[in-house]
Amino acid sequence: MERTDMDEIELGALKKLEIVVEGEHREFVTDLLDHAGVKGYTIVENLSGKGAHGFHQGHLMFNDDALLIMIIAAVPEPLVQPILGGFAPFLGRHSGVVFVSDIQVMRMVKFQG
Amino acid sequence: MERTDMDEIELGALKKLEIVVEGEHREFVTDLLDHAGVKGYTIVENLSGKGAHGFHQGHLMFNDDALLIMIIAAVPEPLVQPILGGFAPFLGRHSGVVFVSDIQVMRMVKFQG
Amino acid sequence: MERTDMDEIELGALKKLEIVVEGEHREFVTDLLDHAGVKGYTIVENLSGKGAHGFHQGHLMFNDDALLIMIIAAVPEPLVQPILGGFAPFLGRHSGVVFVSDIQVMRMVKFQG
Repeated sequence: MERTDMDEIELGALKKLEIVVEGEHREFVTDLLDHAGVKGYTIVENLSGKGAHGFHQGHLMFNDDALLIMIIAAVPEPLVQPILGGFAPFLGRHSGVVFVSDIQVMRMVKFQG
Repeated sequence: MERTDMDEIELGALKKLEIVVEGEHREFVTDLLDHAGVKGYTIVENLSGKGAHGFHQGHLMFNDDALLIMIIAAVPEPLVQPILGGFAPFLGRHSGVVFVSDIQVMRMVKFQG
Repeated sequence: MERTDMDEIELGALKKLEIVVEGEHREFVTDLLDHAGVKGYTIVENLSGKGAHGFHQGHLMFNDDALLIMIIAAVPEPLVQPILGGFAPFLGRHSGVVFVSDIQVMRMVKFQG
């Protein structure tokens, strides 16, 4: 049957991960996502910023010259904890933030294992 | 009456659309948003990424050289389904993802038709 | 005790602010965030877009040549209203949008005052 304008587009619920790290750590992040079974991601380069470095210190995380990247991935909820677990040791040693939020997507099957 | 620091800033609920496509399809997306009555959008250029191409194939969506863009728009909820309906045929033929999420905005009137 | 793969990574709830302004107003925004007690932010530069200018006019906010930036910050909920209050007069005179959304983060302490 043909799709008509009456049909509602179905949305599926996923978690969005937004991971900001220094550019030199790009491969660490994409390898971690690949190994966790994440099907795709988008990378925004040449960001700047400032923030707290590591867990305890509280001084600047990013100087003005740091080349930061944000890696954005939409993942099924069961992958979130394994991915965060893979990041925890990294964030103890390096600058970075990980944001988790709720999103909905079209064509859910593209994001599933 | 003057605004004072005691006044609460009112927020209005909208849906955020984040649309990632190859750069050559920018005008298709902005035309679709314009025709749907979307009042504004922001475009992030020069993204990279990888993902599943189309619906069934499951191979790489974006090679490393593809110039991707992300178009971000905040839209009233009733516009979401018409916009997604406009994208459905596009996503059957081209690479791309559409994320839908909940946001709140100041000055709601700027986003309404 | 060592962390094991069995441990769940704890997430803390914050509000994400996404602030899009013309690039010349970058320092106004980062000063406002700094003074409000925000611990960090990430800046995406060289955006383009269009939108409604100011509150009443409804004509184009950003021409194609405007250099826009998006400043992304994760802030504790009690900071949201003071920050929005600081923006309100700015948005009456200048182009810009502020999106507020719910996120969760690892290492919550990095974002707190």
